[in-house]
Order: sequence, then C-alpha cells, then structure tokens
Amino acid sequence: MANKAITSRDIDFAKWYTDVVKAAHLADYSNVKGCTVFEPNGYAIWERMQEVLDGMFKETGHKNVYMPVLIPENLMRKEGELINGFAPEVAWVTIGGQKELEEKMCIRPTSETLFSDYYAAKVKSYRDLPLKYNQWCNVMRWEKETRPFLRSREFLWQEGHTVHATQEEAEKETRDMLNVYKKFFEDYLAIPVITGRKTEKEKFAGAEYTLTVESLMYNGVSLQSGTSHYFGQKFSKAYDIKFLNKNNEQEFVYQTSWGVTTRMIGALIMVHSDDDGLVLPPNIAPTRVAIIPIGESDEVNSLVEETYNKLKENNISCYIDDTDKSPGFKFAEAEVNGIPVRVEIGKRDLENGKITIARRDTKEKYQVDKDINIVEYVKELMDTIQKDMFNKAKERRDKQTYEAHSLEEVEKIMNNHPGFVKAMWCGDEECELKMKEIRGTKSRCIMENHEHIDDKCVVCGKEAKELVVWGIQY
Amino acid sequence: MANKAITSRDIDFAKWYTDVVKAAHLADYSNVKGCTVFEPNGYAIWERMQEVLDGMFKETGHKNVYMPVLIPENLMRKEGELINGFAPEVAWVTIGGQKELEEKMCIRPTSETLFSDYYAAKVKSYRDLPLKYNQWCNVMRWEKETRPFLRSREFLWQEGHTVHATQEEAEKETRDMLNVYKKFFEDYLAIPVITGRKTEKEKFAGAEYTLTVESLMYNGVSLQSGTSHYFGQKFSKAYDIKFLNKNNEQEFVYQTSWGVTTRMIGALIMVHSDDDGLVLPPNIAPTRVAIIPIGESDEVNSLVEETYNKLKENNISCYIDDTDKSPGFKFAEAEVNGIPVRVEIGKRDLENGKITIARRDTKEKYQVDKDINIVEYVKELMDTIQKDMFNKAKERRDKQTYEAHSLEEVEKIMNNHPGFVKAMWCGDEECELKMKEIRGTKSRCIMENHEHIDDKCVVCGKEAKELVVWGIQY
Repeated sequence: MANKAITSRDIDFAKWYTDVVKAAHLADYSNVKGCTVFEPNGYAIWERMQEVLDGMFKETGHKNVYMPVLIPENLMRKEGELINGFAPEVAWVTIGGQKELEEKMCIRPTSETLFSDYYAAKVKSYRDLPLKYNQWCNVMRWEKETRPFLRSREFLWQEGHTVHATQEEAEKETRDMLNVYKKFFEDYLAIPVITGRKTEKEKFAGAEYTLTVESLMYNGVSLQSGTSHYFGQKFSKAYDIKFLNKNNEQEFVYQTSWGVTTRMIGALIMVHSDDDGLVLPPNIAPTRVAIIPIGESDEVNSLVEETYNKLKENNISCYIDDTDKSPGFKFAEAEVNGIPVRVEIGKRDLENGKITIARRDTKEKYQVDKDINIVEYVKELMDTIQKDMFNKAKERRDKQTYEAHSLEEVEKIMNNHPGFVKAMWCGDEECELKMKEIRGTKSRCIMENHEHIDDKCVVCGKEAKELVVWGIQY
Repeated sequence: MANKAITSRDIDFAKWYTDVVKAAHLADYSNVKGCTVFEPNGYAIWERMQEVLDGMFKETGHKNVYMPVLIPENLMRKEGELINGFAPEVAWVTIGGQKELEEKMCIRPTSETLFSDYYAAKVKSYRDLPLKYNQWCNVMRWEKETRPFLRSREFLWQEGHTVHATQEEAEKETRDMLNVYKKFFEDYLAIPVITGRKTEKEKFAGAEYTLTVESLMYNGVSLQSGTSHYFGQKFSKAYDIKFLNKNNEQEFVYQTSWGVTTRMIGALIMVHSDDDGLVLPPNIAPTRVAIIPIGESDEVNSLVEETYNKLKENNISCYIDDTDKSPGFKFAEAEVNGIPVRVEIGKRDLENGKITIARRDTKEKYQVDKDINIVEYVKELMDTIQKDMFNKAKERRDKQTYEAHSLEEVEKIMNNHPGFVKAMWCGDEECELKMKEIRGTKSRCIMENHEHIDDKCVVCGKEAKELVVWGIQY
C-alpha cells in the first residue's frame, strides 16, 4: 500500500526523508549549490507557520520591521564573539555596480549587528523602552553539507530583537519567547519539546545565555528547533546603545534575540510523516480537507459542492479533486500531501445514505450519514487528530528518552536506539568533547529545576553540577 | 497648524517627502550605504499591501514559492539581453565560507533566470501547464542615488513568473495581472493610473513587450508603479523550457513576469500626504481609527472601551491613546501617522450627549450623538474618505495631464507645471532621446486603442505612429 516513490522510513531514514520532500512537492534542489527551491506545498506550510507565529508575536507586543540584507565588515566586527562565531560561514559581497567595494559586506547570517546599530541611534531615554521588533527574512550561512529545510546555505526565518531598560525585563522576554515557541511546537506542530539552557560551548556567539527548544525525530536524532538569547549588555556596550534611566543616569540597554526557521518544516516531516508521505497536524496544515467525488451523479455533485461551501464558510481550507484521475490515485495524492481529512462522496455510498470520512494520520475510515453536520464533524475529528498526533509523538519521545550513569551506557544507547539521554555533567567542556566521540553526541540543554539523578559526572566521575539532556544532532 | 517637523510640500517637495517619511516613522537611513531600514509604521503598510495583493494573486490561481537569493554568473548569462540590462547594477558575492568562489554569484536583481531554470526541469507536458508562481522577497540593484522607498539598493517586492502552453494564454496573463495592479492602485491605494505599453527603449530587458501602470505624484513627476512583461519564448529558448504539446510535438513555453515593489509606499506618500504628515486611504491603512479620550470620567472610560471593542469585533483596526500626553499632541500624532479616522471622546462633549469624529484627509470634524451606531458610521465615513481621496487625486492628475503638439509646448509644460504630457510619436528612439533633453522627460507608455491627436511626431515632425504619454520620472 505504501507510496512507491518513497523508501521505507525504517529501512533508510535519510532517503525516506528526501523522498517525502520530493513526493509531497515541498522543495527541490536548485542549480544554486547549497540552496533549495521552496515549492508551493512547502512554502504554504511556511506561510501558515508565519501566520500563526506572527499573530503570537503581535499579541505579545512585537512589531515587524525590515533591516538591510548586507552588513558592512566593520559593523560586523564590533562585537568580537559574534564575528568569530560567524566569520567562517558568511558570504561576502566584494563587487557592486561593477566596482570593487571599498569595504566588503556580508549577507546577514543573523542581524544583531544591524538592530544594535539602529537601536543605538534611536534609543535616548527609558521612555523609549522597551523596543520589541521582529523581522521575517532570508539569511545565509555557508554550510558545506546541505539537506532541504534542515541545513541549507540560505534559509528563511524570523528574528526578534528587543531592548529593555532592566535586566529583569529582558530576562523575562527571553523566557516568554521561549514559551511562545514551546506553545507553537506543542499546540500547532504537535511536537513535544524539552526546553532548557545551552551550555557555554553550545550557546549563541555573543549571548550571556541561550535558551532552547529541542525536539526528537522519529529516528532518535535531536533537532535544535528554536532559540532565545539573553545578551545582557554585551551588544549594547559594543554598539553603544545607551539610555537615560529614571535616575537620570546613562545606562546600557539589556537585550534579547530569538528565532525559528524553515527547519521547522523538516521537524514536522521527521516527527509525523510515514511511508505514504507527509502527515500534517490540522492546526498547521495549509489545506485541511480533500473532498473527493467518486462516480458521477447530480446527487454526488451537489453534495460535493455543498460540503465545499460549508467548510469554506467556516474557514476550513479545502479543495475538491474533480480531475479525471481514479479515486485511488486521488486518495494517494491527498495522502502524500498530508491533507489531514479526506471526505469521499461516492455514488454507491449515497444510495445507502452514507459518505466516507478518512483521517490521514491513522488511515482510519468512518462511514457516516450523508446528512451529518459536516462542519462539526470535521472540526471534532481535526481536534482528535491534533491531540492524537501530539500524544503519539510524545509517547515515542518518552520511550526514546533514557537515563545514563556511565559513558558505556551512553555509548550503548546511542549505538542501538538513540534518543535523548539524561545524564549528569560536571560543567567541564572537556567532558562535552569526550561525549562527542560517541557518534557526535552533544549536549542539547541543561535541564532547569530538575532533580539530580546522580552525584557524579557521567564522563569524568567528578562532582556533577547539572542534569543535561544529550543527543545526536542534525 | 502644520507639523513643525515637516517642510511645506509647496516650498520644497523633496525635503517635504523625507520629512514625512521621518516624522511618520516609516523608514530611516541605515549605516549600510544605499539601504533603508523599514520602521514599524512603514513595514505595516507593506504588510497590508502584501495581504491584499496576495489575496488577489491567489484568487487568480497563483501559488507562492521561494527561489534562492543568489544567481550563479553562468546562469545569469544565458539570456543575453537580461544580463546586459542588469550587469551594471548587480552586487556580486565572490567569497563564501572564507574561500574565493570558483564562480561568482549575484544577489538577485530579479529572478527570471532561476524560475526559468526551475521550469526547465519541471515542465514535461501540456498537462503540467500553466504554472503560475509568485514570490515575495528582497532584491538588490546597485543604485547610485537613493531615496527611501523610491530608489534604494535593496527593496522588497513580489515577482510573479508564469509559463503557459499558448501565446494567447500567456498574453492574457500579462494583461490580467496589469489589471490586478490597476485595481489595487485605484481601489486600495486610491491612486488613479494610466496603463499602456512601454516603448522598446523603456521595456524590460529580455521582454517581448512590457505593460505598465503609471501614476502621477503631487508635484507632477511620474512614477512607474508596476510592470507586467510578456516574454514570448525568449527565455524558454535560452533556458530550454520545452513541453510536449497536444500534437505530441516539443514546443517552447510562453512566459510572463510581473511585479510591484515597496516603491508603492512612496507613491502613497507623494499622492495623498500633506504638510501635517501621512494621509492613508482607509482600505490600505494598517490602523484605521484612533480613539482619544479627553478628560477622565467613568463615562469617558466606558465609552472609549466600548467603542474600541465594537470596532475590533468588526475588524476595524484601531487603538486607544490613553497616554498622559495632551489631547492636541495625540491628535497631531494620529495625523502625522495618517490614521484615517479619529474618534474623540471628551468629558465635556459627553455632558451634551456628543462625541467628535474627525477625518484625516480633509481635517473635517463632526459632532455626533454619543449613542450613534459607531461601526456603521465609521464604515460609511471610511468609504466616503476612500472615494474622496481617489477623486481628489484623479482631479489633480487630470488637471496635470496635457496635450502637446510641439517640442516647445512640451518644454513649456515641463518647465512650468510638469505632469503627464500626451503627444504623438513616430516610433523612433532618437526622438525619445531628444525628448530626454527636456528635464529628462521620458516616454511613460504608449496608449492603447486611443485616437491620434495629431498626424506628426511631436519631436521630428515625421508621420506619427503612436499616442505616447510622457513625463519626468522618479
């Protein structure tokens, strides 16, 4: 029954992934090395993600702006850690208008520099604060190996950049946006996440600390899914963003940034999809219902039309597949594209007063009365699918989350059935490097407010400080 | 009464323009030469433009995609006219990941090349056609002189790219999208436009022909506001986009592209705004109503709250200004930001059972009963404002549209009170160049299906072929 264009997920996960991307028309490789083309089905998911997240950002008082795509080298160099972190992977423009530029400029890998430069010019007094801006844009990082959505030289993202009058407020913002991401992943993408703090080694270049949202793919590989950075006054000191505080003293602002990317589309695929193609949670699916007529009759046609209109009126995105393809072909197409609900309206079924409703996630089919309140039925079914998809993903994630008390245990887990491994850590970077020798295992995050499961570091055996979640990463 | 931060429009139009951009917080110069920062108020207008246009594109069967921002030189060079047209003004990336690239890549000035390359790989048969894709993105052209929104090295736009099985269908698409733009300008931006065909000299590099939407600014300068190109098979031959037609023969596709840019924000300013700042038509204003309490009382507060809720429920974007600024200051702020309608709810007014409603465009104020159906009232007022703004702009445009029968007449018009000048043309490029000597006057477009107003070319006196609209351009 499985889609012939798709390799089995359990046989070759990497091949399965690219097969799904291709079969569902999400993206294609381009003749621009390391860059992908976002095809209509893939871009529509991104549009829906933008719509939801943008609403959440605006509700929490953020405004959208747009900064230049190019950053002059000298501006980039003002904050030392940032340039050191990004210099190896930027693209430089050296010629413009047929002339060698006096100063080369890079295509933004991230825009802390430009926002800081802008804020430095704008912020004068505590009355101007906070400024909570966000931008949706393309960024570029010169990656060597690339995979659609997961890692490519150019990707799309949003980057929030905020400045505040107090440390407390900025730290709250960092935390609040982490929670927005968590909510988005869990309530819309149906992907359970763990959140915590990155280690010094893994944090964002230039941040005081980085909070992260981490998810686990079907094959047990972890994906850094969203990050929220607290900068303290690091950038404000480098870029001279000062304000007159309530005591009439000059003070440097406290700053944050946070972002999620088109990589989330990769997470959606690798958490939910199967050998028949894409599976999308209803809350994020750009098209939620496929209506498929089977056989021709006036009754079929009028019920198809009526169903379409009712769903549309209730803002349930849907389409009618009235092409001359066979019903089986139409079902498979709706399946590979991840349409959550399929309504089959057939001539023979109608003779018995029935229609058939199928869900994409479990492939279950229900025969229901043709006069059912279709809007209510579909809404309830979508709620069920959304919940079931989350629970299924959570059960698997929980099953693939282990505790380890020795390096041997970690090794055994990562070699046999990888996943999230909870293990204690002394806080020493050397132990992180040692851990990396096991299939590249890295710290995902330091769990906050969690009990210690051991007294000793899983690597060196010295006194443990933190409970860390480790994983093999994309 | 005029805003003190704004130079008078009739005294120094160029200065007035940048003053409005600054005072209304639409954009700011950045430390990246030739690039602007889109500030929240400016970006919100762009978001609203995107929302409306995107709906119109989707309604007419277009889908959004995203192509890479970089174009390898060799891909760019495939279509000779295109590279000749754009080569002088592109930015080249020559270094990536700390290494000199084997082949330099330019930041897209437009994406015909990438779409063509993609279509060449995808299109096999007439069954695959048409493909009607659009993308919203940033583009870069290395301009020397720059002005916010009107001309900057980087700008935002949409570019539609479609491929069709027949010339007829592609030409219809070219025309249809021109009409979408015309509708958008007239119904949403309240800007009357003329449409027509560009001369060979002014058409897009690589197009068979270019259709254009042209508008006239307050100072009589013309603005190319949107273009729709018919490519015929020029690109499909250069990029080898072939399909098997119904007769089972290989044929090259017929292609179009069309785009509008953030320059439209500049047009909005220069057509409608005044010495008090921005004036926005209600159909495009991101925020449509400002509610301003005057004096404190329970009655004021509850009516303010009630008004806000009623407007919100009816999808009329609005805000309450309950800051501690003076009412006069709040009025001026709503005015400079171009909020179309202001509702003033004052303690003293309420004692007489009244509230005051002010419109931004004419500055008229109306005292109305406090129990008025506020939603209906505001909706009707917004319709009136929208219509009045269009009519006012049209009257001015018509007044500034002239006929000329000799070069001397053109010269006189352009030197004294420039505008659109209708005059006959022989079709010779030399006459266009001659016309350019008059304050840079250029052909805006060839009027289609219009009567000839003279037998002779306005420049050389030879036999005239076309009625052309000429103008000084931004």
